[in-house]
Amino acid sequence: MNNLGIVKRNIQRASKADVEALSAFGSATIHEAMGRVGLMWPYLRPIYVGAYMCGTAVTVLLQPGDNWMMHVAAEQIEPGDVVVAAVTAECTDGYFGDLLATSFRARGAKGLVIDAGVRDIKDLTAMQFPVFSKAISAKGTIKATLGSVNIPVVCGGAMVNPGDVVIADDDGIVVVPAQFAAATAAAAAAREANEAEKRETLASGVLGLDMYQMRDLLAKAGLRYID
Amino acid sequence: MNNLGIVKRNIQRASKADVEALSAFGSATIHEAMGRVGLMWPYLRPIYVGAYMCGTAVTVLLQPGDNWMMHVAAEQIEPGDVVVAAVTAECTDGYFGDLLATSFRARGAKGLVIDAGVRDIKDLTAMQFPVFSKAISAKGTIKATLGSVNIPVVCGGAMVNPGDVVIADDDGIVVVPAQFAAATAAAAAAREANEAEKRETLASGVLGLDMYQMRDLLAKAGLRYID
Amino acid sequence: MNNLGIVKRNIQRASKADVEALSAFGSATIHEAMGRVGLMWPYLRPIYVGAYMCGTAVTVLLQPGDNWMMHVAAEQIEPGDVVVAAVTAECTDGYFGDLLATSFRARGAKGLVIDAGVRDIKDLTAMQFPVFSKAISAKGTIKATLGSVNIPVVCGGAMVNPGDVVIADDDGIVVVPAQFAAATAAAAAAREANEAEKRETLASGVLGLDMYQMRDLLAKAGLRYID
Amino acid sequence: MNNLGIVKRNIQRASKADVEALSAFGSATIHEAMGRVGLMWPYLRPIYVGAYMCGTAVTVLLQPGDNWMMHVAAEQIEPGDVVVAAVTAECTDGYFGDLLATSFRARGAKGLVIDAGVRDIKDLTAMQFPVFSKAISAKGTIKATLGSVNIPVVCGGAMVNPGDVVIADDDGIVVVPAQFAAATAAAAAAREANEAEKRETLASGVLGLDMYQMRDLLAKAGLRYID
Amino acid sequence: MNNLGIVKRNIQRASKADVEALSAFGSATIHEAMGRVGLMWPYLRPIYVGAYMCGTAVTVLLQPGDNWMMHVAAEQIEPGDVVVAAVTAECTDGYFGDLLATSFRARGAKGLVIDAGVRDIKDLTAMQFPVFSKAISAKGTIKATLGSVNIPVVCGGAMVNPGDVVIADDDGIVVVPAQFAAATAAAAAAREANEAEKRETLASGVLGLDMYQMRDLLAKAGLRYID
Amino acid sequence: MNNLGIVKRNIQRASKADVEALSAFGSATIHEAMGRVGLMWPYLRPIYVGAYMCGTAVTVLLQPGDNWMMHVAAEQIEPGDVVVAAVTAECTDGYFGDLLATSFRARGAKGLVIDAGVRDIKDLTAMQFPVFSKAISAKGTIKATLGSVNIPVVCGGAMVNPGDVVIADDDGIVVVPAQFAAATAAAAAAREANEAEKRETLASGVLGLDMYQMRDLLAKAGLRYID
Repeated sequence: MNNLGIVKRNIQRASKADVEALSAFGSATIHEAMGRVGLMWPYLRPIYVGAYMCGTAVTVLLQPGDNWMMHVAAEQIEPGDVVVAAVTAECTDGYFGDLLATSFRARGAKGLVIDAGVRDIKDLTAMQFPVFSKAISAKGTIKATLGSVNIPVVCGGAMVNPGDVVIADDDGIVVVPAQFAAATAAAAAAREANEAEKRETLASGVLGLDMYQMRDLLAKAGLRYID
Repeated sequence: MNNLGIVKRNIQRASKADVEALSAFGSATIHEAMGRVGLMWPYLRPIYVGAYMCGTAVTVLLQPGDNWMMHVAAEQIEPGDVVVAAVTAECTDGYFGDLLATSFRARGAKGLVIDAGVRDIKDLTAMQFPVFSKAISAKGTIKATLGSVNIPVVCGGAMVNPGDVVIADDDGIVVVPAQFAAATAAAAAAREANEAEKRETLASGVLGLDMYQMRDLLAKAGLRYID
Repeated sequence: MNNLGIVKRNIQRASKADVEALSAFGSATIHEAMGRVGLMWPYLRPIYVGAYMCGTAVTVLLQPGDNWMMHVAAEQIEPGDVVVAAVTAECTDGYFGDLLATSFRARGAKGLVIDAGVRDIKDLTAMQFPVFSKAISAKGTIKATLGSVNIPVVCGGAMVNPGDVVIADDDGIVVVPAQFAAATAAAAAAREANEAEKRETLASGVLGLDMYQMRDLLAKAGLRYID
Repeated sequence: MNNLGIVKRNIQRASKADVEALSAFGSATIHEAMGRVGLMWPYLRPIYVGAYMCGTAVTVLLQPGDNWMMHVAAEQIEPGDVVVAAVTAECTDGYFGDLLATSFRARGAKGLVIDAGVRDIKDLTAMQFPVFSKAISAKGTIKATLGSVNIPVVCGGAMVNPGDVVIADDDGIVVVPAQFAAATAAAAAAREANEAEKRETLASGVLGLDMYQMRDLLAKAGLRYID
Repeated sequence: MNNLGIVKRNIQRASKADVEALSAFGSATIHEAMGRVGLMWPYLRPIYVGAYMCGTAVTVLLQPGDNWMMHVAAEQIEPGDVVVAAVTAECTDGYFGDLLATSFRARGAKGLVIDAGVRDIKDLTAMQFPVFSKAISAKGTIKATLGSVNIPVVCGGAMVNPGDVVIADDDGIVVVPAQFAAATAAAAAAREANEAEKRETLASGVLGLDMYQMRDLLAKAGLRYID
Repeated sequence: MNNLGIVKRNIQRASKADVEALSAFGSATIHEAMGRVGLMWPYLRPIYVGAYMCGTAVTVLLQPGDNWMMHVAAEQIEPGDVVVAAVTAECTDGYFGDLLATSFRARGAKGLVIDAGVRDIKDLTAMQFPVFSKAISAKGTIKATLGSVNIPVVCGGAMVNPGDVVIADDDGIVVVPAQFAAATAAAAAAREANEAEKRETLASGVLGLDMYQMRDLLAKAGLRYID
């Protein structure tokens, strides 16, 4: 009747090349390149300034106050993966700390996105293990109820399938389905192609109104200048 | 690169019989029967006491402050459907009111679940058109940017595929994937089979501690009674 | 250096005729007629279903946990006024109950909008004295610090000048500046002119897509239908 | 090292006479009589309009997503008790429904205050079993981890000791320590003594400014009237 | 019927001298000097530690998910201005990033306060372009609907008129109406005059109770010391 | 009828040795050692990265928008104390800044935990005076209404008695009752005894599944591996 109690071992990860290509861009650029879908809600924040990750998703569905499946997930991590953890109910408990981070890193994980709380912030920062979470909480968890690993999950309001590319930085967290990874990287590159030029133009004092030729459209929309 | 700007016309709806079978149970029972997955976050609430719906999902992805796709969705409604509306960003605007409700009802819709705001509450209540929303707001919306209809969406933190069964009542909103509908209805029936009996036993003063035989387990877990 | 400690006695109220004209419309219609400005945030909600008010604003600026100025405001109420109360800090205390409601009503007040808490909900409901508030709280307040009466205030995120027309119903609370009252009422009337007709058309099964002639625009925007 | 896993059987309840005396007053009056302490945060709300309870507290400390101790608490209920349930972490799960309500009522419980979610709202309303909660959620709970019964708990930000009097109505929830119950009832009676008279005076149009003789104090504080 | 679609070109800015005078003080001191009004709600926070600005307001009213008017506003910026951006609905989208910041800076802007989201946090921090916002979000915006520039707006719950002085630092954001700027600066100076002396006195171990001569007042208010 | 207006001078503090022993551990370890009780809600956060304190509680109950009792509390501080401040209503005002911090430090205070707002963040950071608060706000407070000092209070949802040990770091704030301090320190030491070893094992690539011998239990619970 559901997907609980399942660990899917063989998942289709986005290719290393596509992950590499996407890693050249920030979450904002990739989100634009995706057509403005696939972004997690902004309540998920990095636990330290500058946290960054780009990798393929190993997904976990957790129960409230129970981090049992995090250990199950650890075994499914391959180098280059990021773990994306959802919970079946709203919860701020600290599901993850420096021991699990040590284990995840030993498996090759690039980071963690979790729709709940984490702890050992000082250690995680010292390790520079990137975590994006909803809360920080010293509260530990039990190990009593099954969830699942590598099923589709909803994390921070975004659908994540195992193997999708997850890019997280100071601006947010964006999910690129594996099948769109190459095309998205290409679109992102196109978007950034003339950014430097635009920046220079604007820095010289030229207005966006002129650079983007907005004046006519604004007038047509009825904009009035008064003194 | 994404699913924006798409309307899927032919969707696989759960069977009428399965919807009918599920309509015998409340959201709490069905959620338990599902194994405790598929529930939307509890911030989605009915706009009037007693609002209820059970039907197959037509999904809509909306843009912030823009209800254009609601009109596109209306055409895809078949009798017995409920509309499930997600937004690409957090938004409380009033996307839906009595005119759209009139149109949806004319198409046979059973109700609306929307991860945003609605308005014309008085009229919708008078019409007894069930709506579950995140907010109530008089603020109207524009019609400028495409979203999609009948793609998988995330609404209230739950994944909804077109054709899934959605049951919404005072306790919450649960989504049953079409392929699990029959089995879930059977499991829900099994759960409720002896509820009346249990209620009677408890009403007679017998404790859950005894009815569910919890005393040994509690003692084993270390529970101590002190005076 | 500021407007604290001031009571302005002579304020310019919108005309009775304009208030009367606006009272024919709901907050959603008036908000649209205003061009979608002037709405308070949707966290302000009626304390009972069906609460409604339309009147000219007497404004109050309160201090946190202090309702002294509510008594000062009472004296400035004229028949047909509504009181709009802002606080200098976020506060959920119960500033207002049945005694103040009795006093306000004796002065001719139509209701209260307050960006804080109120209490005596049962009595206020029995009196059918309409209140829109941020919270309900039994916590009382002190009388120690001055605020002001009939200065411009921000309530629920909207600017309110004394004498403005305030319309509050199940959908929200909209503020119409006195000088725009007549024109807004006219615009609202125009908006509603053919609502009944539209409702009938939609009820007959005609789609908004056709009634509003959206199909071309959608196609031009790139909407694709797939099967 | 803590109070977990404990059930205290013999608690000192406030006297029936004191509970009876307090039951004559609303939460706002009692809170004032207490000197404005002992109120729970206003996010705890009744699940139906008009819910009311006044009784002696049986306290429960629950674990997140786990309602095991509710069954343990049921056995400690004596006629006239109310159950006050705290959780060790923020949680909105539905810990309580119509079966537990049947059991609680069979034991003589007057109601439930819970710093978490409940479900079966329709049934609880039909039973008129008063519940004040933080959330409504169809999500059920497990029975895996011990909490405690009849230890001091914090619920909705207020300290509650077993045996304290809890009064809950539309305005909020106030906790009266057993040892202060008689004095608080007396103070509440004194407060209400001349309320009817005040209401009449205000209803006649006399201002609070005059009835409470505030004008001098306001002038001394620097209030200025301008035109 | 409203102020939408308007750009006011000639605004009355507070004098350079007044801005300079106010720039000597922090937001807390200025807020006190104002008599404790004019502060924005504390949910607006700097995007990096130490962000600071003091300048004259160019105001913008934006539509949800639409940053068109930011480009219109850019043209109205004069050296020493800060941009204050309000939105007609609650929105967390990323309205502003490094390109707009480059343009604003080229025009002489001192910073941005926005009641919505921003992005390109890393770049903005590297540029040390101060921004105070409600959210950080990678989500971009469209350019479809008119708002206004240099009309009075409500941002973070505070009224802002074009030309007002806005001071923003780690403690918050305060708005000083142009006409009160000189007097406020003087009052702030007076407040700070003996701060250093007070700090020294307190550092020496003298209590505020004695330095501020509070003991009598506290005793009169009924404070009791017990052992 | 209550504890308002009281200052308790002689409180029973946890011993210096116990405080010293507890200071060796972080909040997460101590919270586990306590059996997962005594943690404040995670909305209380340090005002700067790395803030830390461990000391015995002097408690304060404040009124909304009124910091009078902070000065009264200062006198009760002894070297090694931390001040724990609760408010009788939800409030974000800035109750505390650099002057009070100077005074507190002069008395020997180790820091402040406050269920409200603080200001002068830049100065407090420069002083490295640790503060954990609900908000940051430039808004000052008045001195008009009594609260209490050294009575039991609820701060951030946790019960705090004067003399309890309070440990606050990046992960949260935990309260250890004086009578449990020694035992908790011992339990914490036991918990950490083999942490280094575990970290090494996990770093070597051994899985928690094996190190904690979870595989059998997971299988018994029904976990299925699929491909």
